[in-house]
Amino acid sequence: MAQYMDVHHGMTGITADQLHQAHQADLAVEREEGVHFQRAWADPDSGTVYCLSEAPSADAVQRVHERAGHRADEIHEVRLSV
Amino acid sequence: MAQYMDVHHGMTGITADQLHQAHQADLAVEREEGVHFQRAWADPDSGTVYCLSEAPSADAVQRVHERAGHRADEIHEVRLSV
Repeated sequence: MAQYMDVHHGMTGITADQLHQAHQADLAVEREEGVHFQRAWADPDSGTVYCLSEAPSADAVQRVHERAGHRADEIHEVRLSV
Repeated sequence: MAQYMDVHHGMTGITADQLHQAHQADLAVEREEGVHFQRAWADPDSGTVYCLSEAPSADAVQRVHERAGHRADEIHEVRLSV
């Protein structure tokens, strides 16, 4: 399994409840794609959301996000971490 | 203390050793700015590096990165997380 960081733009004003609900929507369908969303961070001022996941591919990450109703704008495989 | 995600572009080909050394360089000076760098993730293919920190301000995050020799291209306060 590889690790991915995906980024959503245009989420200006996102609330804690909305972030929680979006994350729960991912968790509800992720297993069917072999993905696990580990963490997410949001900057409501710039409207940027970062999601960290373990997944078999970037396409699998996107399929989960699409099914949950919030397509990612960028998906990066983060092969290195500290 | 607030949490920040900062992003570096143009790091194409970054190696595990280089990421480790860059993170150590941040850790070596962060205390003087009241910052703590928690994690970093790198995508060597696109040259993107994400750093997660706790800090008193985005300026303090940038000062640490500048002193360590790698200025960030974007710094976002991530007020929300799951």
